[in-house]
Amino acid sequence: MKITGFDVVDVRFPTSLVNAGTDAVHTDPDYSAAYVTVKTDGAQSGHGFAFTIGRGNEVVVAAIRALEPLVVGTALADIVADQAGFWRRLANETQLRWLGPEKGVIHLAQAAIVNAVWDLQARAAGKPLWKLLADMSPREIVGCIDFRYITDALTPDEALAMLERQHDSRAAREAILRKDGYPAYTTSAGWIGYSDDEVRRLCREALADGWRHFKVKVGGDPADDERRVRMVRETIGADCTLMIDANQRWDVDEAIARVRALSRYNLWWIEEPTSPDDVLGHAAIAKGVAPIGVATGEHAANRVIFKQLLQASAISFCQIDSCRLGGVNENLAVILMAAKFGVPLCPHAGGVGLCELVQHLSMFDYVCVSGRMDDRVTEFVDHLHEHFVDPTVIRHARYRAPERPGYSSEMHAASIAEYRFPDGPAWRR
Amino acid sequence: MKITGFDVVDVRFPTSLVNAGTDAVHTDPDYSAAYVTVKTDGAQSGHGFAFTIGRGNEVVVAAIRALEPLVVGTALADIVADQAGFWRRLANETQLRWLGPEKGVIHLAQAAIVNAVWDLQARAAGKPLWKLLADMSPREIVGCIDFRYITDALTPDEALAMLERQHDSRAAREAILRKDGYPAYTTSAGWIGYSDDEVRRLCREALADGWRHFKVKVGGDPADDERRVRMVRETIGADCTLMIDANQRWDVDEAIARVRALSRYNLWWIEEPTSPDDVLGHAAIAKGVAPIGVATGEHAANRVIFKQLLQASAISFCQIDSCRLGGVNENLAVILMAAKFGVPLCPHAGGVGLCELVQHLSMFDYVCVSGRMDDRVTEFVDHLHEHFVDPTVIRHARYRAPERPGYSSEMHAASIAEYRFPDGPAWRR
Repeated sequence: MKITGFDVVDVRFPTSLVNAGTDAVHTDPDYSAAYVTVKTDGAQSGHGFAFTIGRGNEVVVAAIRALEPLVVGTALADIVADQAGFWRRLANETQLRWLGPEKGVIHLAQAAIVNAVWDLQARAAGKPLWKLLADMSPREIVGCIDFRYITDALTPDEALAMLERQHDSRAAREAILRKDGYPAYTTSAGWIGYSDDEVRRLCREALADGWRHFKVKVGGDPADDERRVRMVRETIGADCTLMIDANQRWDVDEAIARVRALSRYNLWWIEEPTSPDDVLGHAAIAKGVAPIGVATGEHAANRVIFKQLLQASAISFCQIDSCRLGGVNENLAVILMAAKFGVPLCPHAGGVGLCELVQHLSMFDYVCVSGRMDDRVTEFVDHLHEHFVDPTVIRHARYRAPERPGYSSEMHAASIAEYRFPDGPAWRR
Repeated sequence: MKITGFDVVDVRFPTSLVNAGTDAVHTDPDYSAAYVTVKTDGAQSGHGFAFTIGRGNEVVVAAIRALEPLVVGTALADIVADQAGFWRRLANETQLRWLGPEKGVIHLAQAAIVNAVWDLQARAAGKPLWKLLADMSPREIVGCIDFRYITDALTPDEALAMLERQHDSRAAREAILRKDGYPAYTTSAGWIGYSDDEVRRLCREALADGWRHFKVKVGGDPADDERRVRMVRETIGADCTLMIDANQRWDVDEAIARVRALSRYNLWWIEEPTSPDDVLGHAAIAKGVAPIGVATGEHAANRVIFKQLLQASAISFCQIDSCRLGGVNENLAVILMAAKFGVPLCPHAGGVGLCELVQHLSMFDYVCVSGRMDDRVTEFVDHLHEHFVDPTVIRHARYRAPERPGYSSEMHAASIAEYRFPDGPAWRR
């Protein structure tokens, strides 16, 4: 089966109309996808995307088009035979790498393509992605990873040894996963643009649905932050777990002061306290706000940033993102590094389709790498799932393991047609 | 004077045909510019660009277009009245920032626009950019800088105090600068794709022209590196200064071993030994290869990365880039941080037009910030200057201070027409 070409679409959902997804920095997001269909000369195609929040989505579309010639004509079997080599061919193209390297628009485009190719691989294997990965040998998994720039933190041999240690017990964990699902937390109640009444109502509904981990947006006026955090803590009670998220709003010293001022509400983590590039800043904040943990990663550009966050003891929770890192392969690298450093994986999700994708990576981590799900949760946000052919299923605040072949990344054709920017009916109205 | 619109052009020079600019990672660069003309309702316009090495230049063009609506309609006087505010309006646009933030394609696009607006300001003032900056009060200079995310390293008050300390002696240094020019080093002799004979010939010519600082590309086969470095050292003699540049080729431990293996050739710095995102890696390399210094910056995404490189004592030479950082404003932030940490500014240049631009920033550093040019050099590469209306002038291996109003960023209309991609005559042939 050979890849014959891409269809690339700019899909945008006008979420800013209802304040969904609002935070202290991103005040009007229109959740969007630079969506790519990898076509083949066979019966199957692969679907992938990068997530953006509206304007500029067309720039990612242009970057996907710029990478297309590197992929078209490649046989799927050749990709399977050298997974890391294929990944590196995109990340290290001699002229295109100047646009990053491995960061921003060109890396988002790589993520979209790599995700689509993994969707194709999983469909061809007749398995959901997490199961495709869980059925790979330790050596095959190591063969998916480009270790360039991370060997000072994790060598291929170390990765292999970690995977082999968990190999014999995979089947037992897979059975538990299928029975119990994977733990999640909710961000749906705490968007910064929601009224207090709305937040309270959403918290009560979530409690009734079985949620026990809640996240609230902060980073506004200090008094507003205090009121909202207090209100949520009062509504969910002392036994539930509460996290806060500043979405990069603060400088380093400011972050420490602002988090300390909220510490009486028994917070599990502060997420994105400052610039996502600031490894040393996060390390200083981690020291300054302990025992509250620092979480970040949804804007961490690549495995090199994650490597340093782990080396510097800057994070207590590792928030991989399925579409910000360069797709599945680079996520595998970060999952293994997090396990080596003993930092629990708590992926970022939400947006459009991020939950659909990242659930597979959390489940892979549980079955093959960390072997744990008692100390970690994956984000869940209840938006836009209806646009996916294989949407997430949440039961008792846990992700159910997907069963359909693929990466759960395919959108309904009708949704694409309706929300295509700028010419879809939703945007012409 | 109001900004009325942009002209944006994809300009590419087929430099890969002659191996110019080749290094261990970028083996076939076509030096290119995403070139923007900021048009006004007045007599003047501003010219700026981001530099890329070919493929993907059209993606930067698309990103400039995405930022255009934020700038059109703005009065130049309003930008001058709030320089940092204008810069931040671009860097922090609520939806577009998701594409970075402040890195990769969207930040290159910001650089192009910001550079063009500074060109416009300098033309309107009738001064070359370095002189426009050198005539600003310390308070006005501080007012150009977005201090977000760097206040833990440099506060506005500290910056102001540093600028005030140098204020009274500015005129004396300006006179020296106009008389003596600014020190430069050459990379033109050491491209990795050049034959040994060619490198030797170019070194001899450069010596005859007065050059005393030479840089050689490494990162290939260890024996090749050794042969080339030895050959250059033998050709230039013991008294000249020699630097090597690996262009991100190595992992951390590999970098230390490879540089140590070349240390007998009396090297001043190792440039870009590893990933540009790896602050901790550069710090480890700096420890491992001392007294050889570590230099990096041409791919450092923003002021937050530079802040950490300085905080971690990871660099001995600070290589700002006029088009990778978000234009003049962010370069001012890094210049001031480097001075505070006592690290000499040795800007990256070359490519197309990078020398034309960055010479202004080095001269500003000398006149207003560090007050020194005895311990620092600015890169010079002798390519493509003929396409600029106000090309660099080198005399006795020193940049002459530009005299024409503007940022020296304007290309000849005939060059743009000839090298426009893909429809210019140079590309149709």
